[in-house]
Amino acid sequence: MKFFNVKTVDETVNIIETHFAPIHEPVRVSIREAVGRVLAEDVYSREQVPPFARSTVDGYAVQAKTTYGASESMPAFLDITGKIQMGKRAEIPLLEGQAQYIPTGGMLPEGADSIVMIEHVEEVGDLLNVYRQVAPGENVIRAGDDVEIGEHVLHKGIRLRPQDLGLLAAIGITEVAVASIPVVGILSTGDEIVPPDKTELSPGEIRDINSVMIGSRLMQLGAEVIYGGIVQDEYEEFLARARALFGKVDFLLLSGGSSVGTRDFTVQVIEALGEPGVLVHGVATKPGKPTIIGKSQGKPVMGLPGHPVSALIMLDLLGVPILKQLQGESKDDFDKRFKARISRNVPSAVGRSDYIRVRLEEREDGLWAVPVFGKSGLVTTMVESDGIMEISANKEGILEGDHVKIKLFGKEI
Amino acid sequence: MKFFNVKTVDETVNIIETHFAPIHEPVRVSIREAVGRVLAEDVYSREQVPPFARSTVDGYAVQAKTTYGASESMPAFLDITGKIQMGKRAEIPLLEGQAQYIPTGGMLPEGADSIVMIEHVEEVGDLLNVYRQVAPGENVIRAGDDVEIGEHVLHKGIRLRPQDLGLLAAIGITEVAVASIPVVGILSTGDEIVPPDKTELSPGEIRDINSVMIGSRLMQLGAEVIYGGIVQDEYEEFLARARALFGKVDFLLLSGGSSVGTRDFTVQVIEALGEPGVLVHGVATKPGKPTIIGKSQGKPVMGLPGHPVSALIMLDLLGVPILKQLQGESKDDFDKRFKARISRNVPSAVGRSDYIRVRLEEREDGLWAVPVFGKSGLVTTMVESDGIMEISANKEGILEGDHVKIKLFGKEI
Repeated sequence: MKFFNVKTVDETVNIIETHFAPIHEPVRVSIREAVGRVLAEDVYSREQVPPFARSTVDGYAVQAKTTYGASESMPAFLDITGKIQMGKRAEIPLLEGQAQYIPTGGMLPEGADSIVMIEHVEEVGDLLNVYRQVAPGENVIRAGDDVEIGEHVLHKGIRLRPQDLGLLAAIGITEVAVASIPVVGILSTGDEIVPPDKTELSPGEIRDINSVMIGSRLMQLGAEVIYGGIVQDEYEEFLARARALFGKVDFLLLSGGSSVGTRDFTVQVIEALGEPGVLVHGVATKPGKPTIIGKSQGKPVMGLPGHPVSALIMLDLLGVPILKQLQGESKDDFDKRFKARISRNVPSAVGRSDYIRVRLEEREDGLWAVPVFGKSGLVTTMVESDGIMEISANKEGILEGDHVKIKLFGKEI
Repeated sequence: MKFFNVKTVDETVNIIETHFAPIHEPVRVSIREAVGRVLAEDVYSREQVPPFARSTVDGYAVQAKTTYGASESMPAFLDITGKIQMGKRAEIPLLEGQAQYIPTGGMLPEGADSIVMIEHVEEVGDLLNVYRQVAPGENVIRAGDDVEIGEHVLHKGIRLRPQDLGLLAAIGITEVAVASIPVVGILSTGDEIVPPDKTELSPGEIRDINSVMIGSRLMQLGAEVIYGGIVQDEYEEFLARARALFGKVDFLLLSGGSSVGTRDFTVQVIEALGEPGVLVHGVATKPGKPTIIGKSQGKPVMGLPGHPVSALIMLDLLGVPILKQLQGESKDDFDKRFKARISRNVPSAVGRSDYIRVRLEEREDGLWAVPVFGKSGLVTTMVESDGIMEISANKEGILEGDHVKIKLFGKEI
């Protein structure tokens, strides 16, 4: 088969970023349900956090200057004039020469500027012996130390983590706008493909590995999956089924069918679904070259290669950027790939990005990546692997002992 | 407050691994719903994958020996005697000197041992000119190359990934036994704590940051969360609410309340819930020392520190091993932490594990970890961070430029 519009990985990602954007309006969800969702608004605080000065230890609120010079042999002596209650206003102002008991998290009384830890004092009736001096602000979180009024606390486009939601709770925001969950349809194609629950295979038949694998990966990535079933290599039927599924989803995946016939149909179907049709017809990678990216009716369509190894690699490499675009997600701040050393020479061809399955091994001198070779039709090679290593298009290969970067298989997007 | 049974992190993890195991019987789920679940059985294949020899390319099935010596200038000539249909039995045996067209994934005819790619042949009527020789087995996946009958394909205790589920589909297993989802209860304590949706705070009050943050992290980790609300620092009420929630869950988290009173109550409540009660009372870490691990009625109870930074770090450090034990999950094969270089000296104390928040920066010479300092009561320090770096208990600190390992914030367990 000829590929008429082969692009590099970087070119393809650029095309994806140019063509795709959120299709739906954001939705509002409770912060208890928002983890892993993409924030669709900038968040500013209307409040200070904490709203009052708090103690970070159990101890005594004091004026720091009244403790200066205090030591084990020469304590400072202060008058105990009160006890702060958790969750209550500190009622009694603190004057010079005084101390008030304060629990961790308690509100500092007016006039106090620091806390002496309970370990460094001794109570003698109403008198407090202070054995260590403190500086102003010591053991105190001041009002607004965590968040100031008007502060831009969260940026549109982040994927919400537990601490981001904790911050929203802190400023009293319990509902937030997030990108709608992308709905992805998977249509499996190929005359040889039968459902996984078919117990007795006829000669020539193969169970549908890819749709389960791809669907599971999409679920990890936070997408909703609609399985469109299996369609034969017959153009009219293929188009009708693809069209019906396309109407229900935000993103359509056509999972080959690795035969030339299926691949041709995939191109024709994408063109028939609507303008502009095919954007990328072949990607300069190994494996994964027969990957197709299209756009119809404003929505992405992707034709995945038929070999399971290729399909999973290309979904992560190019399907993930599509999902990010559909949710308006920001780009990563840093390269999240994992570093290890490669256990042997691996040749490659310039002009093509190679993706090598690797198993990771802890050795005495660190972490090593051991290539798992095998045809890309063998799903067990992925089961034995911990991740995927890239040999970039400008390299002729890598040498044993080289430091390499690995995309770990995991739940992270 | 005195800690009567302070343990190191390693000792605590050992105690967790000794004391906790799955509470419930495994459940059976569809492979379409099993991603991220922990496999509760060993899986052996009853079949070969593929069940027949397949082509990995579009081309012609041949006997390799009939192509030996073939080249551009000196092609081999073979008789075309058929065309393999996708998904059908290869009906006509292949004899010496013959070739049959075969699509990618097609079934090899009897007598063929290799495939010549379509790019290396020319059809002239019923005659095939072969311009490149092939070796036996070339471009072929043989029956059983991926999986053999009786092969131990998946091990009990793995967390199922997309490719593992693809493999199950390949061998016709569409339902699998997995550990039941752990149900975790969160009870927030502290007189100062109010629900996040309280709009007007009274002096001394703080919204409940931790339960939202911890609950969200538990959801990422695949747990089901029951929010038990907020209880005041009053022992009888605290015990009654803890007991009621404990009955509904597999794992109870008591989220401080960082005051000494709350911490004391947590110990008493764990003891009152049942034998053996408190196992670990204080962990040799900074932050996170006031962490309590207990066991009652065979189930884990954990008292988390009150500061949000400490709570999230200790949940990942010790709550995750508890969740793994409850699901019978195997230990990691390799250290999954991320490597970077530290941007400045960080002192530490021997005998204590320090956990430092870091932001990651891509610089010209690689990835650097920049410590994010700040009191552990400040949730924004976690929002600004990309992960947590450990300084292990046997180190006095680390020096600028040292290679360090970082637990990235993410979805992975």
